[in-house]
Amino acid sequence: MFKLSLLALTIGLSTAAIAAPQKNEPIQPIEPAVITQPAKVELGKQLFFDPRLSKSGFISCNSCHNLSMGGSDNLPSSIGHNWQEGPINSPTVLNSSLNLAQFWDGRAADLQEQAGGPIANPMEMGFTHDLAVGVLASIPQYVQSFKSIYKVEKITINEVTDAIAEFEKTLVTPNAPFDQWLKGDEKALSADALAGYKLFKEVGCVACHNGPAVGGNSFQKMGLIQAYETKNPAEGVAGLTGNDLDRFKFKVPTLRNVELTYPYFHDGAYWDLDDAVDVMARLQLGRQLEKEQISQITLFLKSLTGEQPSFAIPMLPPSTPQTPRPEPFAKVSQ
Amino acid sequence: MFKLSLLALTIGLSTAAIAAPQKNEPIQPIEPAVITQPAKVELGKQLFFDPRLSKSGFISCNSCHNLSMGGSDNLPSSIGHNWQEGPINSPTVLNSSLNLAQFWDGRAADLQEQAGGPIANPMEMGFTHDLAVGVLASIPQYVQSFKSIYKVEKITINEVTDAIAEFEKTLVTPNAPFDQWLKGDEKALSADALAGYKLFKEVGCVACHNGPAVGGNSFQKMGLIQAYETKNPAEGVAGLTGNDLDRFKFKVPTLRNVELTYPYFHDGAYWDLDDAVDVMARLQLGRQLEKEQISQITLFLKSLTGEQPSFAIPMLPPSTPQTPRPEPFAKVSQ
Repeated sequence: MFKLSLLALTIGLSTAAIAAPQKNEPIQPIEPAVITQPAKVELGKQLFFDPRLSKSGFISCNSCHNLSMGGSDNLPSSIGHNWQEGPINSPTVLNSSLNLAQFWDGRAADLQEQAGGPIANPMEMGFTHDLAVGVLASIPQYVQSFKSIYKVEKITINEVTDAIAEFEKTLVTPNAPFDQWLKGDEKALSADALAGYKLFKEVGCVACHNGPAVGGNSFQKMGLIQAYETKNPAEGVAGLTGNDLDRFKFKVPTLRNVELTYPYFHDGAYWDLDDAVDVMARLQLGRQLEKEQISQITLFLKSLTGEQPSFAIPMLPPSTPQTPRPEPFAKVSQ
Repeated sequence: MFKLSLLALTIGLSTAAIAAPQKNEPIQPIEPAVITQPAKVELGKQLFFDPRLSKSGFISCNSCHNLSMGGSDNLPSSIGHNWQEGPINSPTVLNSSLNLAQFWDGRAADLQEQAGGPIANPMEMGFTHDLAVGVLASIPQYVQSFKSIYKVEKITINEVTDAIAEFEKTLVTPNAPFDQWLKGDEKALSADALAGYKLFKEVGCVACHNGPAVGGNSFQKMGLIQAYETKNPAEGVAGLTGNDLDRFKFKVPTLRNVELTYPYFHDGAYWDLDDAVDVMARLQLGRQLEKEQISQITLFLKSLTGEQPSFAIPMLPPSTPQTPRPEPFAKVSQ
């Protein structure tokens, strides 16, 4: 009797699997991270959380890409060394491995290149690569980790940023309600959220926000149909190319976990997801949406909140008397 | 045969337990936390990590009591709102439940009273209790947590600080090598560390640094035999009592995890544990120690590093459009 029931259950499961193949949609599920180099990921996690990579000894990667807060800082723009106001909204680190390039203007090709940026940016961590490496090289446990993982006697910034990038690649957020729906669980989305997804496609949002990350795979002009008003001076891709056609062209941000990554847009000017949807529809698509339509799209967007990375807080190896000391309040030479 | 071996093993273990009762020493082992209210601890953990308890939305309890770094910030004095330089070294939160009072001058009776301090301190988190509670009250998941744990419809600062304190009570660090030695494992300490402990007692350090926390249970004058030179203006207990006899009287800090909680003393002026031991012996005890003696005492002190609290990083419930927005760069009214 028990065996028969088990057989029936097995058949039932198989049938369900056959009956609900993955849906053919312009958005695909996020897949869980497959960790092949756990020691490297663990080292990268320590580095991601280590404020000694900053001049002050106070700011870590996690300060502005806070993994308790959707991988962002939930501020319009970030607080940098000496409380400087950053020039642009801090993008989420979650699922950032799916981006075609890093930073809003795509100036870094990949996560490793990105990771070196904030360390040496005077507005952010305010340090230099040499000084950061010098700190790590003074800490025996770090030296040992780099030696055993990278087979190097002398740490360089390349290993540091590689380890951080390997950790960041694990920061994916699978199994969102929308992904469950994509995989065949019809009950994973409410009727309103499903209506929101249909609108998202019909209105045209999906033209830019598609793929597994629901964005992150193209550059587009902010304010395509109608200009975007902002006091933020960021030029977008034009800042790199000098080409006026690239003015206000930014990487399309991922909409994964957008519920957690307020405030929105490169200037962080909008806090309410409803408002952000309204602005996008008007400025990018020339569409004035009804209030109910906006609510439905927002419900769909909230179904993109996936399982957040869960891990024990890392323990950082202690400094030694030889470790260069942080300088949070050093006089700035002009 | 198997059963016989098992019996022999059982007898062996019992014999060991009888042969090595806990040592009768002026320092006692740290006991692991017994969590009786896990939901409250979990809420307190969220609050401890939530920067929305600060005006800027950037500074959390964990910013200056970083649980990846021995529950401290490893800075001489802390960085507060608007990058203000704090007046005193941030004491470790680890084992702080064992302190007879909180803060260097003992001005808070317990952890709950302490927890309210930094939130409302203009030099630290720069917020007010009312504003912090207002932020939490705008977040449905927090409201629900407080309701189910405290049976309150309206959150007040009392529940907020109670939950933080309950979490902090779990931040004990049992099973340090020294504790293993106390409990009978003679191999847990090296000969030099054991010699260091004997010196620690003979020289007189143990007069103030005793009990399970190896300190934290009395107030003593900094610079008892010889004055302590510092530019730090902190007055110690005299700042509260106005009594000149209390000048430079501070709570004796715990030496648990002292390897991780550099730099040392209320002004954070000493980074090298050897130097700190030397200064203490001269100023408090009138003893000039030999270099080898200092090294041995330092080795003993490093045997006080216990198991650090290990838990998954908390996920913070997202703000809503109704949540008052952080003000990291608001103009300061003079």
